[in-house]
Amino acid sequence: MTPAELAARLRLIVVTDRHAAAPRSVVEVVQAALAAGAPAIQLRDKEASARELLEGGRALLPLAREAGALFFVNDRVDVALALGADGVHVGPADLPVGALRSAVPHDFLIGTSTDDPESAVALEADGADYIGCGTVYPTATKPDAGYVIGLEGLDRVARAVSAPVVGIGGITPERASAVARTAASGIAVVSAVMGAADVSRVVGALLEPWRGRSGSPR
Amino acid sequence: MTPAELAARLRLIVVTDRHAAAPRSVVEVVQAALAAGAPAIQLRDKEASARELLEGGRALLPLAREAGALFFVNDRVDVALALGADGVHVGPADLPVGALRSAVPHDFLIGTSTDDPESAVALEADGADYIGCGTVYPTATKPDAGYVIGLEGLDRVARAVSAPVVGIGGITPERASAVARTAASGIAVVSAVMGAADVSRVVGALLEPWRGRSGSPR
Repeated sequence: MTPAELAARLRLIVVTDRHAAAPRSVVEVVQAALAAGAPAIQLRDKEASARELLEGGRALLPLAREAGALFFVNDRVDVALALGADGVHVGPADLPVGALRSAVPHDFLIGTSTDDPESAVALEADGADYIGCGTVYPTATKPDAGYVIGLEGLDRVARAVSAPVVGIGGITPERASAVARTAASGIAVVSAVMGAADVSRVVGALLEPWRGRSGSPR
Repeated sequence: MTPAELAARLRLIVVTDRHAAAPRSVVEVVQAALAAGAPAIQLRDKEASARELLEGGRALLPLAREAGALFFVNDRVDVALALGADGVHVGPADLPVGALRSAVPHDFLIGTSTDDPESAVALEADGADYIGCGTVYPTATKPDAGYVIGLEGLDRVARAVSAPVVGIGGITPERASAVARTAASGIAVVSAVMGAADVSRVVGALLEPWRGRSGSPR
């Protein structure tokens, strides 16, 4: 997959959160998000054991496949490999991209996070396929996610690398248009979709501002 | 490596525990254990992030290599692969052996745990290279490790499979001779070595009863 092809499939990454999804199941919310056109899912559950995460992935991956969406696992590269997922998203406390790149197949996608243009360049050189960048707007989901870089900060990181850059942090349907005017390729959201009363409407609204961009999200 | 060759190298698996090692570092205790002839080390730290575990492994792996000892990582297969460790040890909450076997190189060793002969047979069929079996004696390290199966229980599991079976749980130098009279191939210890005042003496005493067995531990 070229960076441009990947970029088109990263317009919207729906990150799972079972607390935000409750009382609905994560499967139920993901199903609705996929039906509404979400092109990428990231399974994230820091409290789950590897086995629980694998079981969660086994429930979700076929749904993503059927919808033609990409499927990532947060942190646990081993779970992602055992599942046959498309890739992994690793943060600052997870395995370093360089160490990882040599341990996984060539076409296994590695996403990582930074809010700094220079780090983004280094991470791309280490083998990162895409970069999550934030916090774009203040958020309650990850109070420890670092300071707010805003749209300007996101734009700077996106212009520094050729890999797709995805904005994360407090992005809502109302704010998506402004994010789509930066050099970012897409957005990642946790609570905006997981906690949405009307998942289909929110996913549609989050995707809408990107429709002018070239490439098909699926 | 044949099961017999592996068995000879699993006479004693020293499992790390930074709390038990304190105030000494894990590196210091492992170094002493290797110098005294420990043929296998398992890096275990359930509280560490993947990156911390990788850093811990990067400090320990060269010491194990230099000593000719095997090096395993507990639970985190991805960390083990990124390190270039010899294998992983997975428990009931970790990735299932079958899912794992297909995701790792053929010669990457997979150890797992069971106290039941039938499960041991199934795990060996799934691709487990060795089996940790206990709790042999009551222990404070893992109060949730299940009921005490004793030497008879260990012997039953060891006789059920051709893969090496390693007894774990409360094994001390005083008890090692009794364990060596079962069909088990070796023992795994946490606090007996990590918390030992004289690491060298304890490792020597834990290895002593196995000297009659064929094969060289290193």
